[in-house]
Amino acid sequence: LTDIRPVKPILSALHGTVVEPHPVWLMRQAGRYLPEYREIRTKATDFLNLCLTPALASEITLQPIRRFGFDAAILFADILVVPHALGQKVWFAEGEGPRLDPITADRIHKLDPTQLRSTLAPIFETIDRVKSNLPKTTALIGFAGAPWTVATYMIAGRGSDDSTAARLFAYREPQAFTALLDILIAATADYLIAQVQAGAEVLQIFESWAGTVPVEKLEDYSLHPIQQIVSRVRDHAPSVPIIVFPRAAGTNYLRYACETGANAISIDAHTSLSFAIEQFPANVVTQGNIDPLALIAGGRTLRSAVALAKTQTKGRAHIFNLGHGIRPETPIEHVTELLGLIRGSAA
Amino acid sequence: LTDIRPVKPILSALHGTVVEPHPVWLMRQAGRYLPEYREIRTKATDFLNLCLTPALASEITLQPIRRFGFDAAILFADILVVPHALGQKVWFAEGEGPRLDPITADRIHKLDPTQLRSTLAPIFETIDRVKSNLPKTTALIGFAGAPWTVATYMIAGRGSDDSTAARLFAYREPQAFTALLDILIAATADYLIAQVQAGAEVLQIFESWAGTVPVEKLEDYSLHPIQQIVSRVRDHAPSVPIIVFPRAAGTNYLRYACETGANAISIDAHTSLSFAIEQFPANVVTQGNIDPLALIAGGRTLRSAVALAKTQTKGRAHIFNLGHGIRPETPIEHVTELLGLIRGSAA
Repeated sequence: LTDIRPVKPILSALHGTVVEPHPVWLMRQAGRYLPEYREIRTKATDFLNLCLTPALASEITLQPIRRFGFDAAILFADILVVPHALGQKVWFAEGEGPRLDPITADRIHKLDPTQLRSTLAPIFETIDRVKSNLPKTTALIGFAGAPWTVATYMIAGRGSDDSTAARLFAYREPQAFTALLDILIAATADYLIAQVQAGAEVLQIFESWAGTVPVEKLEDYSLHPIQQIVSRVRDHAPSVPIIVFPRAAGTNYLRYACETGANAISIDAHTSLSFAIEQFPANVVTQGNIDPLALIAGGRTLRSAVALAKTQTKGRAHIFNLGHGIRPETPIEHVTELLGLIRGSAA
Repeated sequence: LTDIRPVKPILSALHGTVVEPHPVWLMRQAGRYLPEYREIRTKATDFLNLCLTPALASEITLQPIRRFGFDAAILFADILVVPHALGQKVWFAEGEGPRLDPITADRIHKLDPTQLRSTLAPIFETIDRVKSNLPKTTALIGFAGAPWTVATYMIAGRGSDDSTAARLFAYREPQAFTALLDILIAATADYLIAQVQAGAEVLQIFESWAGTVPVEKLEDYSLHPIQQIVSRVRDHAPSVPIIVFPRAAGTNYLRYACETGANAISIDAHTSLSFAIEQFPANVVTQGNIDPLALIAGGRTLRSAVALAKTQTKGRAHIFNLGHGIRPETPIEHVTELLGLIRGSAA
């Protein structure tokens, strides 16, 4: 039997091959800026339920592929399905973002990893459905939150810009906090391995709150947990590329590139691509970092942002993406324009 | 006439002399964590009015000096007095933070810098009153916001964590945005020069939203405006040390140290002091960067944070401070403990 699938450009790029024009996908590409997403969204009152309904989640995952032909689809799900699967109460208050029944030090031992795969079985079914409907050149990206980031929500019971609750918890209850991270390392690795087994071809680990890790605890709370997850996934799926997105990591970006074992590092809009390219080890692929607001602004702003990124990444293995998720207010015609700029000959 | 004042340790440190124990002050040291501040706060319903009432503002400035004996007092005021003095409507909604009547591109030319010194005369009187009541070893720090940071408030009409409104404004109306920065450069330099003339001995420029400047516009929108202000102040007051605090500047911290002309750079809690010490030019003094949450946590967490910073800064010109403002919920006995740790022999 010969493998007759055409090469998937993003997989080649993630393995270090220079693919130009660079492959492209957008964080949150399956989301509220799309009218077809908003239409489906009305069918499920609860966001978590939407993530766990394969017929809807697979359709949402495929929507931006049909409309724009991105080089990768990303599973429609949420990083908080892991605490949900561990038994923590998670819900999404309309217009207010995620809510959780905040975890306390004395209840960490009650988190139960044994039901993770059964609770999240609908997500693996979503992956299977998407895979059988993807164009042959399009890869499917699975994902999870990094332990620090997920812990910030589990402890605060909601999102917060500075992770105050998690940082104080870690200062006051360092042993309980480490126990929580250990549970999340194991559960997240297991969840990602199951995604690969279901058909995910790339994995992205979101350390969305990398910027809030206490600086002297960066290794213990963020780098090492991610490295552990990468290592465990590699034991089961050595060829699946892993992207790490340490948003707002600032001066620590280099450490994520050197110390997590990631194939690729996603760069936020406030870190220079030139910095990453100059500093990162040669075998670490870059992803990013168009400002989501430049995509909203469009026109000259967008053209010059893409032209600059093209110049910076010329002759390198790179994946175009935004520096953060696409915003709901983004005009969809600007996304079409972005793809034209990336894939067209204008540089 | 001989100058018989004892040396002020913080001035020595800011001029590059190794002073150990390192001088110490805390951002927002005159603030809500102090019961005596909360008591005065009840006497003025409007925060802006409080900043512009010399009898109260000078008392507030002196409160933390009396209680803790910090090496510097920082003028009690707000960065938004500059837009106020330029004619923009500014008020403080109780429990909600600052509000401004948002500025639009077509109204930028109406900002009027000619009344700045008369509108802010009460602040210069506050400086004069504080100066005559400070211990002889204590320096008085004046301050202002950097143009980008102040512009984010002027455009959004309020604080925002990601400066979305200012970034979009700058993308869409680059000429108007540059005009606004130019007005702020001139007004801020004038304001700081007037503070020095009134008696301020050190100046700190707060680029609190350094982390949100579009990365390819860092020079135009943040570094150059600050450098211009530093240069204009130096023309009038060559010996007054200037501290720049580019909060959350991440990988760009080094550029602030190299390109603004600052005597000292204040480091946030998410950037490693070791990074700053290794990378910064030798003549740039460091300030920072104890995590305000470590100060809340106290105990072992605080002891180890101070011990680490002492080790990192041993034999260098350094100023102890927090990585961000002290939080209202900070136990005041932890501040006493912090000063003991810094000034005591324990390392």
